[in-house]
Amino acid sequence: MSSLTSLILAPAGSIIALAFAGYLIRAVMKQEEGTEEMKKISLAVRKGASAYLRRQYTGVGGFFAVMFVILLLLASFGYLTFFVPFAFLTGGFFSGLSGFIGMKVATSANARTANACRYGLNKGLRVAFNSGAVMGLVVVGLGLLDISFWFYFLNWFYTSVQPIAADAERYANITSAMLTFGMGASSMALFARVGGGIFTKAADVGADLVGKVEAGIPEDDPRNPAVIADNVGDNVGDVAGMGADLYESYVGSIISSSALGVAAGLGLNGIIVPMTMAAVGVLASIVGTFLVRSSEEANQSALLAALRKGTYGSSLLIAILSYFLIRNALGPERIGVYFAVLSGLIAGNMIGLCTEYFTSDTYTPTKNLAGTSETGAATIIIGGLSLGMLSTALPVIIVGAAVLISYFVSGGASNFSAGLYGVGISAVGMLSTLGITLATDAYGPIADNAGGIAEMAHLPEEVRQRTDALDSLGNTTAATGKGFAIGSAALTALALIAAYTDEITGLVQRTGINFTFNTSILNPPVLVGLFIGGMLPFLFSALTMQAVGRAAQGIVMEVRRQFKEIKGLMEGTAEADYASCVDICTKAAQKEMVLPALIAIASPIVVGMLLGVNGVVGMLAGAAVCGFVMAIMMANAGGAWDNAKKYIESGHLGGKGSEQHKAAVVGDTVGDPFKDTSGPSINILIKLLSMVSIVFANFVLNNSLFK
Amino acid sequence: MSSLTSLILAPAGSIIALAFAGYLIRAVMKQEEGTEEMKKISLAVRKGASAYLRRQYTGVGGFFAVMFVILLLLASFGYLTFFVPFAFLTGGFFSGLSGFIGMKVATSANARTANACRYGLNKGLRVAFNSGAVMGLVVVGLGLLDISFWFYFLNWFYTSVQPIAADAERYANITSAMLTFGMGASSMALFARVGGGIFTKAADVGADLVGKVEAGIPEDDPRNPAVIADNVGDNVGDVAGMGADLYESYVGSIISSSALGVAAGLGLNGIIVPMTMAAVGVLASIVGTFLVRSSEEANQSALLAALRKGTYGSSLLIAILSYFLIRNALGPERIGVYFAVLSGLIAGNMIGLCTEYFTSDTYTPTKNLAGTSETGAATIIIGGLSLGMLSTALPVIIVGAAVLISYFVSGGASNFSAGLYGVGISAVGMLSTLGITLATDAYGPIADNAGGIAEMAHLPEEVRQRTDALDSLGNTTAATGKGFAIGSAALTALALIAAYTDEITGLVQRTGINFTFNTSILNPPVLVGLFIGGMLPFLFSALTMQAVGRAAQGIVMEVRRQFKEIKGLMEGTAEADYASCVDICTKAAQKEMVLPALIAIASPIVVGMLLGVNGVVGMLAGAAVCGFVMAIMMANAGGAWDNAKKYIESGHLGGKGSEQHKAAVVGDTVGDPFKDTSGPSINILIKLLSMVSIVFANFVLNNSLFK
Repeated sequence: MSSLTSLILAPAGSIIALAFAGYLIRAVMKQEEGTEEMKKISLAVRKGASAYLRRQYTGVGGFFAVMFVILLLLASFGYLTFFVPFAFLTGGFFSGLSGFIGMKVATSANARTANACRYGLNKGLRVAFNSGAVMGLVVVGLGLLDISFWFYFLNWFYTSVQPIAADAERYANITSAMLTFGMGASSMALFARVGGGIFTKAADVGADLVGKVEAGIPEDDPRNPAVIADNVGDNVGDVAGMGADLYESYVGSIISSSALGVAAGLGLNGIIVPMTMAAVGVLASIVGTFLVRSSEEANQSALLAALRKGTYGSSLLIAILSYFLIRNALGPERIGVYFAVLSGLIAGNMIGLCTEYFTSDTYTPTKNLAGTSETGAATIIIGGLSLGMLSTALPVIIVGAAVLISYFVSGGASNFSAGLYGVGISAVGMLSTLGITLATDAYGPIADNAGGIAEMAHLPEEVRQRTDALDSLGNTTAATGKGFAIGSAALTALALIAAYTDEITGLVQRTGINFTFNTSILNPPVLVGLFIGGMLPFLFSALTMQAVGRAAQGIVMEVRRQFKEIKGLMEGTAEADYASCVDICTKAAQKEMVLPALIAIASPIVVGMLLGVNGVVGMLAGAAVCGFVMAIMMANAGGAWDNAKKYIESGHLGGKGSEQHKAAVVGDTVGDPFKDTSGPSINILIKLLSMVSIVFANFVLNNSLFK
Repeated sequence: MSSLTSLILAPAGSIIALAFAGYLIRAVMKQEEGTEEMKKISLAVRKGASAYLRRQYTGVGGFFAVMFVILLLLASFGYLTFFVPFAFLTGGFFSGLSGFIGMKVATSANARTANACRYGLNKGLRVAFNSGAVMGLVVVGLGLLDISFWFYFLNWFYTSVQPIAADAERYANITSAMLTFGMGASSMALFARVGGGIFTKAADVGADLVGKVEAGIPEDDPRNPAVIADNVGDNVGDVAGMGADLYESYVGSIISSSALGVAAGLGLNGIIVPMTMAAVGVLASIVGTFLVRSSEEANQSALLAALRKGTYGSSLLIAILSYFLIRNALGPERIGVYFAVLSGLIAGNMIGLCTEYFTSDTYTPTKNLAGTSETGAATIIIGGLSLGMLSTALPVIIVGAAVLISYFVSGGASNFSAGLYGVGISAVGMLSTLGITLATDAYGPIADNAGGIAEMAHLPEEVRQRTDALDSLGNTTAATGKGFAIGSAALTALALIAAYTDEITGLVQRTGINFTFNTSILNPPVLVGLFIGGMLPFLFSALTMQAVGRAAQGIVMEVRRQFKEIKGLMEGTAEADYASCVDICTKAAQKEMVLPALIAIASPIVVGMLLGVNGVVGMLAGAAVCGFVMAIMMANAGGAWDNAKKYIESGHLGGKGSEQHKAAVVGDTVGDPFKDTSGPSINILIKLLSMVSIVFANFVLNNSLFK
């Protein structure tokens, strides 16, 4: 197959993914929504989620408008090509669109999943999983669409409008322009993750603090005015936020690898490998979704096995197909790159297993953590924090091994650029199964919401048991998904850092500006950059956790007010004002996400102007290192606290209502912002920092204090 | 003054410090110990502390013996000179000795301080402060003694026994050998900090959990069998541990700067500046102790002003004297180095102020934190963690600025080595006031213990009020002291990393081994090293926190047993078995400190053998960055929780016994291992990693997988 012909796989894969997503949407929407009460609740959640996204997109629209103007200005001063502002917009638009579609389907699937669970577990699984698969497929479909569009457009532009004859130079220009549209996706992802994360945890923590603790009513009780906000939060945080996060990693890994491939002198083939591998991943993911089947009354481990069959089946398929793909594109002498793919695939699955080991209550760490509740809240907090910290060791070693292996098998020992290309490709390998891993992940909050609806609509106990089984399974797959999200964020961030230095090298060659790289750790600007970068995830986590705290406080006040002022609410004769809680969370999320976003975007520019490009490289590396470790720590501590609480609730150590349970609830509440706000936001932070650095590379190069 | 003559200042300063410490010991010991009951309690604490140190030194002795043999073996294979094993021993010996003397005086001063408080606040302050000053002066005195001894001995050896004619080469050999004795001090410090930290917090947390929470008896109640262990812990952890920590920073900064000075081509003058500056610091500290005076019934802010007069007075004196010293040693063309000293001095004080701002209940952060107790334990935990994370930003910027300033004022722009020398000198500048800053720090636990003795011996209420005033002041000065400890650890670690690369450069030149530095962040072994280094502080903290949890659990069991089995204990008619609790803590501390120590010592060797020297540099930088940020986070979160609890206890937000207070106690308990075990241990970790790397540099260079 000739090179440009094989590239057609990318848009083809994109269209297949979107078409299949459309088919799944139809299949989901054909299901019954259930009783009138279920429809009513589902509608309330849908309305709340739409209202939130509308508000978020309005606010974010303002940000995009301002950034667009800034980028236009930079372009008019010659710091950027005029494609960048537009690429920035499309990146943001498609990221937002995939979150929007995913969330629309998820909120429509909640009641349908609950309803399907009235007829059997497998039926419920199908609905929830199919809806999750929509999210996965839309993310990869739109991601590939955006990448393909820009590739074909820029290729046309640089061959027809402003011809660049030399292949190497033309492809360098193309990938350099494509890189910048990642910033749009990253910015949108940051808002989705931070805003969604603040929304969901403010509602969750607020609802729990005043409902469960003060008023003594159960979770998901319709008398709690924050209960709809809580359900909305699951959708805007865990579905839309997670989707935007991985959209960004996905796109980031493909475009950074393409740029690294061109820098390594592979020309068009360097671009073809990541793009067609992504396309192959789409097909493998679709095949994987068909493997997810379960008997009608399967137990939980059989359900897990069904989901695993899907993800492992897809991984295996990719492992086989990518061999031929790479051999065809790069030739047998570069087949080492194939092992970079494998190392990424394996590392992703291994990190997922680590996460599961540390956070599932079937293994000792979480069981022991539950045991620390015997001596109160303080010991379970200390236990969870140390569990989270301890759990960082293996993932660091796994990612380290993946980096070294993919670097050396790709020829890094003799050719530095080829080695870095391998690191980028290992990120693509890890993310190639995204269609299906995201499906098994996004399905969790849908099952969770279905349980809430079953509770609120007073469905029979067995329905709730089935949704609980699905939900609990969702926690395990979410752990794996989080492992993937963190691991891929780290590898993508590293690929982006490498792409950044290539970008600078290209600029120096083209403009002849006086600059020499000295990214040695001992170079003081690099070292100081490292320190600043290392501090950023801490600062960022502090701000997002404080935001959750403040917003939760607002919910507590509002719920207390409604309990006092709405007569008959506690007796069930009057209805709570759900919309006001949704509104409070929405406003808080919008307000609170500004400062963290500003820090993420301003840091590379300010550090660049003060410490120069070398300082920026230091900052990016410091943020990637500390951010990776922090993100694992927070995700695993949060997951373990959550499951330790569930373990106690399932009857161990005194069960529900015991002193141990109260201590575990404290742990879970601390873990909420850890695992669903601050931790995941760090993933975006480390990628966005690199993206901003790339877009502002030329500006910083020309306007920095140090060279 | 000729160069070698001026160097006499160092041993002279050492002897003056030790002589003045002897004078202060006599002054303290002349005081009355008070009533029979006070004597009895004080004796129990003294015996417990001695028993602990004896056991610790026995265990550590075994470690030193093994390491001594390993180093001898390495020396016999030609990887080290034969001085190293012996230098290693003296470093450990003097570090242990300074901890031993400091603790001896502290445990003798407890009852005397309580007794002096019967006659007035200023009397109590004098006794406590003088005892703290002993610790400060012994640390700087013995540190300078060890350094001076090795300098004179090696200088004699390389001029008379095995003459090296060329000055540059001779001084390079001398400083290279001197560097290695830092590893002895570091190892001893690690054991003292980790072991002491586990001891003190296991006793504290265990005593609180079962005494305050379960049995409902007040703190320091003699019926609690863990109360003596708690008091012993303050001495072995906060006094001996802190002393060993700063001994190591002090010595490390002086010897690494000397090595950097020689590498920068400054010859003997490069050594003279740090050594004589340290000597001048001793004199300034002694002058400072005379400035600490207060009126007989001063309030707390007057007391603080008295202590501040001492530290600021010393700083000012050093700022003046070091100008002439540097001008004399390096000449007016290198006077820039003086500004490196200033930047270190100022940075140390600024970090101290930051720490105070974030942890003192006179400022908003801690007041707000206390407010989060209104919604329970979970919110105060989230609040404390985010406060700690937020508080890392300013210290990072301050240290970053200090690094850049000291680098550039010392001529880094044109001469890399001269710049790094500046960074080392700024660490020396920060630590030059150690004599007095350590005095104001070590005095805190003495006052704390005096309060405990006043309580146990049933002294009048006014005495307890006075000891409380001293204790509370101690918390503020301890915060400043911790800021110094962390800041100086970071700067010293950076100087040591630079010294490590110089050491490697020297080895490569001498042995002609095939190795080229590539410490670029983008070099995969460096990058992977960064990740591993970044993870180490997390792993280390996890292990030390878990150790505290386990040991506290043991205390809880033992106290419960005594409450049950010893008849009449709760009624006050029978006496508790204090020794058994001391014994449990001692054993636990000894057992639990092995694994963290092993990790700290093995990591540089294992990483070096796998990733090579470049990987080691990455690991050291990653550990320094993440460790610095984590140490601040943990110290400040812990300090803020502690003071938020005290703020509530002083009558705010419902006061003692309220729900808010209970929530604050949870926060304080979580903060205990944060601020007194894991956080401070990280300081040592990051320096010890560098020290081990230096000692094993030649071995790693010859036995690594990657070059």
